[in-house]
Amino acid sequence: MLGRTIFVGTFVHCRSLTEVEVIEDGVLGVDEHGKIAFIERSATTNVRDGWKDARQVKAKRNAFFFPGFIDTHIHASQYPNAGVFGKSTLLDWLNTYTFPLESSFKDLDVASRIYNRVVARTLSHGTTTACYYATIHVPATNLLADICQTRGQRAFVGRVCMDRLSPDYYRDESVECTVSDTQACINHVQKIDPQHELITPIITPRFAPSCSDDALKALGDLHRTTGLPCQTHISENVSECKLVKELFSSHDHYTDVYDQAGLLTSKTILAHAIHLSQDERDLIQKRDAKLSHCPASNTALTSGRAKVRELLNLGITIGLGTDVSGGYTSSMLSEAREAVFNSRHVAMDDGVDAKLSVEEALYLATRGGAKVVSLEDRIGGFEVGKDWDAQLVELGEVTDQELDQDAGLVEIFGDESWDDKLAKWVYTGDDRNTAAVWVKGRLVHQRVKTP
Amino acid sequence: MLGRTIFVGTFVHCRSLTEVEVIEDGVLGVDEHGKIAFIERSATTNVRDGWKDARQVKAKRNAFFFPGFIDTHIHASQYPNAGVFGKSTLLDWLNTYTFPLESSFKDLDVASRIYNRVVARTLSHGTTTACYYATIHVPATNLLADICQTRGQRAFVGRVCMDRLSPDYYRDESVECTVSDTQACINHVQKIDPQHELITPIITPRFAPSCSDDALKALGDLHRTTGLPCQTHISENVSECKLVKELFSSHDHYTDVYDQAGLLTSKTILAHAIHLSQDERDLIQKRDAKLSHCPASNTALTSGRAKVRELLNLGITIGLGTDVSGGYTSSMLSEAREAVFNSRHVAMDDGVDAKLSVEEALYLATRGGAKVVSLEDRIGGFEVGKDWDAQLVELGEVTDQELDQDAGLVEIFGDESWDDKLAKWVYTGDDRNTAAVWVKGRLVHQRVKTP
Repeated sequence: MLGRTIFVGTFVHCRSLTEVEVIEDGVLGVDEHGKIAFIERSATTNVRDGWKDARQVKAKRNAFFFPGFIDTHIHASQYPNAGVFGKSTLLDWLNTYTFPLESSFKDLDVASRIYNRVVARTLSHGTTTACYYATIHVPATNLLADICQTRGQRAFVGRVCMDRLSPDYYRDESVECTVSDTQACINHVQKIDPQHELITPIITPRFAPSCSDDALKALGDLHRTTGLPCQTHISENVSECKLVKELFSSHDHYTDVYDQAGLLTSKTILAHAIHLSQDERDLIQKRDAKLSHCPASNTALTSGRAKVRELLNLGITIGLGTDVSGGYTSSMLSEAREAVFNSRHVAMDDGVDAKLSVEEALYLATRGGAKVVSLEDRIGGFEVGKDWDAQLVELGEVTDQELDQDAGLVEIFGDESWDDKLAKWVYTGDDRNTAAVWVKGRLVHQRVKTP
Repeated sequence: MLGRTIFVGTFVHCRSLTEVEVIEDGVLGVDEHGKIAFIERSATTNVRDGWKDARQVKAKRNAFFFPGFIDTHIHASQYPNAGVFGKSTLLDWLNTYTFPLESSFKDLDVASRIYNRVVARTLSHGTTTACYYATIHVPATNLLADICQTRGQRAFVGRVCMDRLSPDYYRDESVECTVSDTQACINHVQKIDPQHELITPIITPRFAPSCSDDALKALGDLHRTTGLPCQTHISENVSECKLVKELFSSHDHYTDVYDQAGLLTSKTILAHAIHLSQDERDLIQKRDAKLSHCPASNTALTSGRAKVRELLNLGITIGLGTDVSGGYTSSMLSEAREAVFNSRHVAMDDGVDAKLSVEEALYLATRGGAKVVSLEDRIGGFEVGKDWDAQLVELGEVTDQELDQDAGLVEIFGDESWDDKLAKWVYTGDDRNTAAVWVKGRLVHQRVKTP
């Protein structure tokens, strides 16, 4: 059981897509269950009943508490390849870089080394919730769930399903195997976290081209009968879209493939969604399926430019995903900057309305992501009753002293508004600015600084 | 006078646009003048005559010596605004953010604080040469030259010239003032560094719209008579191009404005060069004028996508510029990544040939930049007789220990080729990987690490 903690200082969170709330002089209490018990918007010296013995955590000048990031799409197993893709595009990248690496997770020592690293690293970036793709291997996938639980990261953990168009050395042997191995991973989480307090299994067909029709249908059935969420990729790359058209020629379109299989629901997370027709967008909106926008990956692999503003205007729910290792970065802060930059490239073609602001990108990285994972009642912002999934952000202050590289690259000269400070954080910040991270009230990362 | 130093370990530099040389087991001697005296491509235990008492600097595993970066376009005075631009584009951004800040450099205390910071910061990023725009103020511009010399950064220091279309509170009062104030800055550098060992004055008309025809011509004369280089902006933004067409209606095009003024020569550095006609490109190529590509800025301000491959194919010389604070980053490593990313967006439209590789971006950031500043005989790569302008890059190694955030974000798992290591550095590296920096043999930055 945790003790009670009182957090004091500036709190910043996104109330809506366009509205950031800055509480400059706030007091927030987190109870022994890791839930926000109260928020006072102007500091008071009155101590509430029952909170006299609570610990206190204070944010310094230029520091603020911010909701933890929610990474709605990340391949934990691909972490060692972050930054390595040469000039490849999706389909050759999979064969050259990805499948050889993923297949090595047959070895649990390999899996342990990499999964421990990626969970520690993403926590250090302030990622309090991650939607992970693992590999096809049951033991390694279960190990990832264990590591997330031990290290205290909220996670959706998906065993990757793929029974065709994959190398012989790395694929499910049959549809039965696809289902039973997925079920084995579900059973494991049922054992270690029956209420899904932190860990939730997620049904994970890799993407339509690497799943037979039967496999997709079987996973759709599992999605329906278990009520568990599912995640997959859609419409990332033009060659991939052509391939889907050939493989599923009887379907209306790519989105229809998932829909017919029972995999397009309000608990579905679709990554990328770049080359969608209007019919597909409408169907996604109608089914209330969720999107994970992965701009760093989309640019690195020359996949295309997702038109986020148009999708938002249709009322589709969107979060951000790092898509390691199609994406080069495991930092959601960097991903937010990439979302802003992707939107500027869209704006060069489509006009100024396409631009996402820094505040909008931060919304997608927090509250938007919470909606994508259907946990908007528990995480994504600071409200009474929500879990304390948060990070303490400290921005560097320019002094007359020499550089303190340990403090990171954000330079606060003193005249900046909070808008400016947030912009500087998104554009020039990194893990050095994330001083501490909590999930469900538990301190899960703390930056160690040079004394 | 410096002592002699022997550097031992891996050396990496770009021999040409496409060819990186990795010397895994090298020995390189730097003499008392800061020049490379010898390079041995396979380590030897024989100590050369006269080098017995030389200091030794060894690169560790996963570490390498790399040429210092050459930032061919950076507004030193705009550094406090890095990351702050909202949704503005060039012309409103100048009035909202830039001119008010630049005008504050009338106060030397302001200038001292900011210039000391930007020089220290860019050195920490491995920038050994920078082409700085200062402000219109003579004392502050001279202070920037002094600070570069004291801190040991090679620099081109330009007093900004602007005598129209600028706010009343921030402009040159007359053409005479434009010339005499520029001359005053030239005289100052003549005093502190008569041979331009480190510091070179650079003639700096801000850009055509903010200079009268007479001012441009007077600066063109100064360029001719002094033989000093010049730098300005060209064709960054569509509205700017329209404005130039209106203001200089008798000229063939934007490039012709500079050409007619005598400002388009082989010692001219033009930043941006996005919206150029074929005639303009041909004229730039014919005059052998140089280009500074600033992708971070071009995306942030929605200026457009420079077609770097096409310009390179015409034989035009190109380097990279951070363009702080149109660009959000003062790191040339980040700028190299942005150049790769910009090229991927061009490739989405024009096809795969437009893609720049990581190696090509690193070439532009080093040897390309050396050519842009006409110092290709002295810096940009490792050859005997060149100055030792270099950085020691250390990449993190994944161990069984917990994260060492101090070591930065680059994760070397052990199986990576040198190509992979360079890619990981460009995509996930930062100033934490730059362990030491030398200019002309002098150690000008060293990263202090947690013991």
